[in-house]
Amino acid sequence: MYILEQNNKISLHIQLYEQIKNDIIENYNVGDKLTSVRKMASLYNLSKTTVESAYSQLVAEGYIESYPKSGYRVEDTNSVLFESKNAKSTLSNEEEIDWLYDFYPARLSQDSFPLKLWKRLFTKYIDESLDFCMYSNGQGEYGLRVEIAKYLAKLRGVHCHANQIVVGGGFIDSMGLLARILHKKHPVLAIENPGYYAARNVFESYGFDIQKVGLDNHGLKIGELKETKAKLVYVTPSHQYPTGVTIPISNRHKLLDWARQNDGLIIEDDYDSELNYINRPIPSLQGLDQFDRVIYVGTFSKSLSAALRVSYMVLPTHLMTSYQTNFSAYFTSVSLMTQKTLEKFMSEGHWERHLRKIRTLNRKKHNLMKSLLIEKLGNTMKIEAQGGGLAILINPTVDIDLKKLKEFAKKERIKIYFAKNVCGGDWDAIRMGFGGFKEEDIEKAIELFAGIWHQSLL
Amino acid sequence: MYILEQNNKISLHIQLYEQIKNDIIENYNVGDKLTSVRKMASLYNLSKTTVESAYSQLVAEGYIESYPKSGYRVEDTNSVLFESKNAKSTLSNEEEIDWLYDFYPARLSQDSFPLKLWKRLFTKYIDESLDFCMYSNGQGEYGLRVEIAKYLAKLRGVHCHANQIVVGGGFIDSMGLLARILHKKHPVLAIENPGYYAARNVFESYGFDIQKVGLDNHGLKIGELKETKAKLVYVTPSHQYPTGVTIPISNRHKLLDWARQNDGLIIEDDYDSELNYINRPIPSLQGLDQFDRVIYVGTFSKSLSAALRVSYMVLPTHLMTSYQTNFSAYFTSVSLMTQKTLEKFMSEGHWERHLRKIRTLNRKKHNLMKSLLIEKLGNTMKIEAQGGGLAILINPTVDIDLKKLKEFAKKERIKIYFAKNVCGGDWDAIRMGFGGFKEEDIEKAIELFAGIWHQSLL
Repeated sequence: MYILEQNNKISLHIQLYEQIKNDIIENYNVGDKLTSVRKMASLYNLSKTTVESAYSQLVAEGYIESYPKSGYRVEDTNSVLFESKNAKSTLSNEEEIDWLYDFYPARLSQDSFPLKLWKRLFTKYIDESLDFCMYSNGQGEYGLRVEIAKYLAKLRGVHCHANQIVVGGGFIDSMGLLARILHKKHPVLAIENPGYYAARNVFESYGFDIQKVGLDNHGLKIGELKETKAKLVYVTPSHQYPTGVTIPISNRHKLLDWARQNDGLIIEDDYDSELNYINRPIPSLQGLDQFDRVIYVGTFSKSLSAALRVSYMVLPTHLMTSYQTNFSAYFTSVSLMTQKTLEKFMSEGHWERHLRKIRTLNRKKHNLMKSLLIEKLGNTMKIEAQGGGLAILINPTVDIDLKKLKEFAKKERIKIYFAKNVCGGDWDAIRMGFGGFKEEDIEKAIELFAGIWHQSLL
Repeated sequence: MYILEQNNKISLHIQLYEQIKNDIIENYNVGDKLTSVRKMASLYNLSKTTVESAYSQLVAEGYIESYPKSGYRVEDTNSVLFESKNAKSTLSNEEEIDWLYDFYPARLSQDSFPLKLWKRLFTKYIDESLDFCMYSNGQGEYGLRVEIAKYLAKLRGVHCHANQIVVGGGFIDSMGLLARILHKKHPVLAIENPGYYAARNVFESYGFDIQKVGLDNHGLKIGELKETKAKLVYVTPSHQYPTGVTIPISNRHKLLDWARQNDGLIIEDDYDSELNYINRPIPSLQGLDQFDRVIYVGTFSKSLSAALRVSYMVLPTHLMTSYQTNFSAYFTSVSLMTQKTLEKFMSEGHWERHLRKIRTLNRKKHNLMKSLLIEKLGNTMKIEAQGGGLAILINPTVDIDLKKLKEFAKKERIKIYFAKNVCGGDWDAIRMGFGGFKEEDIEKAIELFAGIWHQSLL
């Protein structure tokens, strides 16, 4: 007996379908005949259409089948295989500590994002002329790529055409696409050690053979690179991660020459290049390259917004053919709305102004944190890297119990970051991010940090 | 002799730096001494600070070095290695044909995106409480995941907690992350043949061993699956791509049983599941699963907006630990703005209303195209798949010159799509997309298509 409610929000044929389905699962055997449509309709005072709709759904899902002249019969659903229930375990809720001070080394302060301006541009330029129901250009909107090319030419010395730019949903996303493009021709990748592990992990997940190359005070040791079998190398020439070293012009030329002679390729991660507080930004390696040997990778995460998820790559022209042939079906994961708004943000000159503004702002924070670290920690630490980016790297010069430091930090609700977690090795440095702080908070944060630091000294 | 312009927009120290740099490149030898800071300042009537800034930049880039007591000397820049110039070839501009009718099989019509509403929600909910300068939750914003979980429970019969959902930047992006999560434990992947090549390609690029499994009118042949070494299978159970077959309940149970007995996993691509014009949407395979064996993948591309770039996965709880341990550093590529707006779009009930609306709209278009195809092509074709999604698949039943058809189509500026391009094999079907058309255009489009069709018959 099925109970069908006329005034229920759920329509009659769905009520009927649900109840028959449960009836089949619990009470019917394979081959059992269902009540005919006509009889069912008259029994429950329903239209034939209603009953037919319910039966049609059961046919579509495979519970019953319609046989000529004999009507609907129950199919073998194999549901006996699943009599035992296995409660799905629930996951714990995600941990959220309310940090008092967070030294995250790769963030800008919340108020530095030009939210009002962004909303104004969004409201103005997102309109009916854009087709949100179609896949947009897989490589990124042409207009945005033109703006990125202009910016790179003007401020980073990168020479490229908009056609060579591929827009991605963040650095890791771009590196993933790059790994797919390169992995057949270049299965061995040389990387800086210590270096940026996130990059390494992407290539590792595609089965690349990773060769670690050491550093000296001119960056990557080119002699060591030549001893590897790699014809592909990942470098951070402007501001090495994590040491902050800049590859000097002599080694840039050597590196380019290595690539040219070996039919090799250089991935230039232009990490933190725009945030240089002592000198002007170092021009890109790509701009020096005359032989199309450099893949340039950049992101808006550390200079505009990490939550916007936009990155880009400049591919050498010879890789564009391979990209267009094999990856034309890959769509950039950046929404058309974000792309359009960013394009206008750049074309109207806001981007350059914004860069100047955050450079000034973060230079102040950098200098303040540097002088406070020197004042409060004195010669118990050495500044390992400074002068750019969003963090100062410090290394203890005396014995310190880092485990204790970590515990104290958690107790005081200070979040600190060890370099080794992202670049491995014996690198004991701590990455003291200043970008996320308001200027007035830096003193209090360092004071608290200095307190736990001195308590942790052995 | 350097020419420094006081009224130039470029500051004096940068003018000086640029000119010395070029001078070094063209005229200096390694070891040559630079004019001292003091002398340079007096020669050009500059402050010492200006000259020091220019020299400091040259040191930073490695053109010169400062030696105690002897001043600045030119370093070996190795630039002789690069005397020959190799003009970077330019790429042709991207081809854009102005199609009259485009039968793209996976799009909605441009006016079906709720643009005004979206802008209203964006303006209302994107505010200072959101931190755009920090990386947001790598798995996706919790609030959005809660909405997706609610929707999946209510309309797709998927049972999951928001904690199991991972938000991605489109189907391919989600599949890429999934491939990374699975490839160590499950190096062999079984796929439907014919099937969706984009999915296959992702797994292939991660080095998975791909095993093709045939189909019958119940979908994937489970007997054939059992003969492979695969413990991982990719299926489109609601609406097989491209045949449109639904896996009946009996085979769903068999498939789940195969997974349970083999410690296997099923990737359920719930392709086109919401757009079902004959019956109700078929409940998901995930919802039947009692043993945590199904990974459910969905996207907003075909029901809301392809240009928005949002997809999601539901991971079994046992995979969440591996995800959280190994992939916590991966950030979803969906911007915080898109996530927040989508969350509100869903939580305020617009999403369900939108789905009903586009289902009604596309049902009409589907029925119209179907009847026109029957009317105009008659028995020269057979309808292979229909009743759901955004395209009808037709197969010629008489000899036809497909090359000619392609040429005629291009000439008439009609863009047509062959199934074999995306699912391979001998599958000659043509995918007649209706979603992108306005209702009133379908008749004209089919008329034109029928014309070239009949001209191509042998």
